[in-house]
Formats: sequence, structure tokens, C-alpha cells
Amino acid sequence: MSIRSVAIIGLGLLGGSIGLAVQARAPDIATKGWDRDPSVRERAAARGLMGHVYDTPEDAVAEADLVILCVPVGAMGDAARAIAPGLAPHAIVSDVGSSKAAVAEALAAALPGVTVIPAHPVAGTEQSGPEAGFASLFAGRWCIITPPEGVDSQALEALSDFWTQLGSKVEIMDAAHHDLVLAVTSHIPHLIAYTIVGTASDLEDVTQSEVIKYSAGGFRDFTRIAASDPVMWRDVFLTNRQAVLEMLGRFTEDLTALQRAIRSGDGDTLFDLFTRTRAIRRAVIEQGQDDERPDFGRGHGE
Amino acid sequence: MSIRSVAIIGLGLLGGSIGLAVQARAPDIATKGWDRDPSVRERAAARGLMGHVYDTPEDAVAEADLVILCVPVGAMGDAARAIAPGLAPHAIVSDVGSSKAAVAEALAAALPGVTVIPAHPVAGTEQSGPEAGFASLFAGRWCIITPPEGVDSQALEALSDFWTQLGSKVEIMDAAHHDLVLAVTSHIPHLIAYTIVGTASDLEDVTQSEVIKYSAGGFRDFTRIAASDPVMWRDVFLTNRQAVLEMLGRFTEDLTALQRAIRSGDGDTLFDLFTRTRAIRRAVIEQGQDDERPDFGRGHGE
Repeated sequence: MSIRSVAIIGLGLLGGSIGLAVQARAPDIATKGWDRDPSVRERAAARGLMGHVYDTPEDAVAEADLVILCVPVGAMGDAARAIAPGLAPHAIVSDVGSSKAAVAEALAAALPGVTVIPAHPVAGTEQSGPEAGFASLFAGRWCIITPPEGVDSQALEALSDFWTQLGSKVEIMDAAHHDLVLAVTSHIPHLIAYTIVGTASDLEDVTQSEVIKYSAGGFRDFTRIAASDPVMWRDVFLTNRQAVLEMLGRFTEDLTALQRAIRSGDGDTLFDLFTRTRAIRRAVIEQGQDDERPDFGRGHGE
Repeated sequence: MSIRSVAIIGLGLLGGSIGLAVQARAPDIATKGWDRDPSVRERAAARGLMGHVYDTPEDAVAEADLVILCVPVGAMGDAARAIAPGLAPHAIVSDVGSSKAAVAEALAAALPGVTVIPAHPVAGTEQSGPEAGFASLFAGRWCIITPPEGVDSQALEALSDFWTQLGSKVEIMDAAHHDLVLAVTSHIPHLIAYTIVGTASDLEDVTQSEVIKYSAGGFRDFTRIAASDPVMWRDVFLTNRQAVLEMLGRFTEDLTALQRAIRSGDGDTLFDLFTRTRAIRRAVIEQGQDDERPDFGRGHGE
């Protein structure tokens, strides 16, 4: 089986980028889209994110071989119920949500008898909305597919091929392990960034103006992450609660140990950790997952 | 009084960038340098970081109007003692250290009777060494000067003019307040980044390879900061202990509150914070302290 048409439900950063990537890299696949917000539909159509933007979810998914739900993970159940009446019998339903066990459960409940294969392209920016997407968002990034037990192997292969065509590298994983891995590499980093930006903006003895002026000391990197879509991230923490709390526990244990090292003036412990973490950065760059230019290649004022 | 020659002690990222910036933007000021590592001296001379690199600290500082110590804050006392015999009577001694009360104390003790005016250019990258510097590092960034009580106002003005010539915006602040502000905007962000990168690389149920592969979910931003110079940062935490522990306390209080919100499924608290933090990002960009391009303008694989 091969995908000849894809319907995208939710036309924000991820949905829009899929539409643009398909048009740029797999132009034989027809792209059809819908968003529940009429203004988003209009802007998406104006930017040409999809071959066609429809006014109803049923029309968007009619005859689509693949339907990808690109909505916050808390809205997956509703989105699935909205498309159900229009789905072709052979359609594969997938998604791009950042937590997978909860989404798998919501989609299975809303779409009995439908081929559901959840997925998560590990890619994004801090921007959101139909203006934010771009065709190369997935190039060189991993897409993790978390098929349910007993999945149709041809459908899995078709979905895997689809993401490969967009430039992604594909990995198959079970949903529970995905949720643990992403808690570390994505959810906890976001939670920490949101927290420190909140803490810094709420102090009495340091003004918000000072925090902003001197943000080049490191804080500004956290503000990027803490500018991510609030609804998306609220839903991630509510749906991946167990893994997030587990990993947060390990993080705070380690932070407490460092706090003790600072209090007791134990420079060796600090130095050892700070040396070890440099190696991780080198590996991230070697594997093509980040920009090797110093300071992310930021412009330096001139 | 005006600065006609500057001596840089320590030829790493900061020292090298000052040398290059002076040559690019204030070529009438002579640049002289020294580093205690002969290999660094050689590489610095080869890159032309300074007009001249000397073999001894006394020779480097002889007749210099301004001497800037660009060494880890824990090494300031030793560096000051090394230059003391060669200092011209009228010389101003300054530095670029990230903690200021401890440095002021160390320099005052090592250089009795000398005009000491500590300073901190809030700029840098995760790179270090004589190959890392570049002329525009300070352009548009703040340089915080923390003059001691009873400072010579002409010397202060000369130092302030010097940094302005390199493209910096200058702010005068007392050392204790500097240490509190930078604990928030720089030291705690670094401590958190070092911690989460350490935590992630030490897990049993998630491999280091997985952490690296899926780092584009947010983790990779932290690896940049956690690749910063280990000696420099060890010294920052040891010398700004009190302010760091104070701010760390506030951060962990806020993190505990978010942990509770996640555990109890309190989405409103999460959403409110995540919305508030977006405004801080906008202000950082509006004030020219970060790159406004999504994802720091990272290349996207093509």
C-alpha cells in the first residue's frame, strides 16, 4: 500500500510544515487540510500550506489514505471523533503528539476498528500557528513511530515511508518507552525552562528589566524554550504525568547533590560534572542534531 | 585620562575577543598580552589576537594604561600577584569575571594601592581557548562595571569609554547586586543545564544514545550551555556561593509548585505560567539580546 493523499487536521507549526514538506519533497501525494478555527483555515489556504483547505473535517479526510492529527495531545480524542464519520475504510490515522501512551488510548477509544498508528516527529520551534511552518522542519530529525500491538505491517511500512520521504529518520519504539525518553530529552527541559523564566520574572530584589538586559549570560536560551505553545505544553505535562514526575525526581536529586557541593565548596565534584557534560554536546553535534557554530551561530550585533 | 595601551592577561575566549575588538574598533589603542600557558601564547600570537604577545606578565603590563585580567575567577589573586611587579603607577586594573564581590576582594588584597575597577562583560559562547574569540563578541551586549567605594572618577570614565568603544553598553552597579542579578540570568541557568545534561547521561532506563538522538526536543539547547568551560564555571559557583544558593532556593520552590500542579492535574496553573513566560521572550528579543529567528535560526538539515 502507498500513500497517495494525506489529510492534515490542525494547521499550526507541525501540520503546516507537513503540508509544505509533502508539496516540496513528495509532490505526488495530495495534501488536504482542516482546522477548527476558520481564521487559521483562511491563513493556511493563503500561505498554500495544503493543496486544498476544507471547511469540514469530514470533507478533508474523505478518501485520504493517511490522516495526521496535528492538534494538542489533550484535543486528540475530540479531533478523532470529528473525522470519524468521513474516514475511508482503508485510512491510516496517525498524529504528531509529544506523549504517546495517552494519545494511543484516546485514539483507540474514539476510532474503534480503525488502523491507528501514533507517531512523534521530534522537531519543532518555539513558534506556533499557520505562519510558523516550513518545509525542512523534519529534515535530519527523528520521527518515532509507536505502533500498537498487532499493527498491520503494510500500514506501518507506508507510514514509515511517508516520514522518510519528508527527510526524517524513522525509529520504532513502544509508547511507554517513548514517553520516558521524551520526558528526559524534551518535557523536563521545557518544564525547567518555564520554571526558571517564571522565577526570574517574579523576583523582588532583581527587576524584570535587569533579567532581560543581562539575559545574554545564559538565561536567553531558556526564554526560547519557554516561549513554546502553552496549550500544547500544558497537555504534554497532563498526559505524560508519570514519566515526567519520575524524571523530575531524578533531576532534583542531582540538583540537590550539586547544591550540597556548592555549599561545601567541593570544586572537584563540580569540575567532574562540567567536564562530562561537554562530551554530550560533542555527540549531539556529531550526530547532526544541532548547529555546531558557537552560540548557535547567533548574529553578534553587527 | 585616556587609554592608549591595554594589556590582556589570559588569552582565551574573552581575552582574545578583547584583543580582536580593540584592533577592529579602536586601533589607536595598543594591545599587549600574556597567558601562563606557552602553547596558548603561541596560538594567540599566530592568530594575531594581540599586537604583541609577551613571555612574562611583567613585560606585558609594563607601561599599560589598562590591564584586564581574563582568567577564571578563582585564579584572579594569582594573576594579580604575577602582574604586580610590572604595573605602571597610573595603571587601572580590571577583569571580566562573572562574580564580582569575591574578585574585588581578591584584587584589592593582591594589589594594595592600585586602582582596581572590576567589570563583567555579559557576553560569551560555549567555546573556550585562543581559537574561540571574535571581534564582535561584545557588540550590543552589556558590560557591568562594579567600582569600589571612593573610586577615581576619571579612571572609571576611562574604563567605561573603553568598553563603549568595543560596542558594549555600560552599566554601573554595586558588586553585591551584580552577583544576585547574574545568579539569576547566568549562574542558575548554567547550573540547571549542567545538571539536566548530567542526569540524562546517567540514566539506566534511557540510553545515552537515545538522549542524543532525540535531543532536538529541547535538550540540545541545554547541551550548548553545559559545554561551557569547566574551570571557569566551577570557580563561579565557588565564588558566588551565597547568591547562587539563594536563587537556587527560589527556583526549587517554584519547581516544586509546578510538580504539585502536574501531579494534581492542575492545567490552569501550567497554562498561566506558560503564557506569562512568552512575554519575557518577546522583551529579550525587542531589546536586542537574542536572535528573533525561530529555533535561533538553526539550519534545518538542508
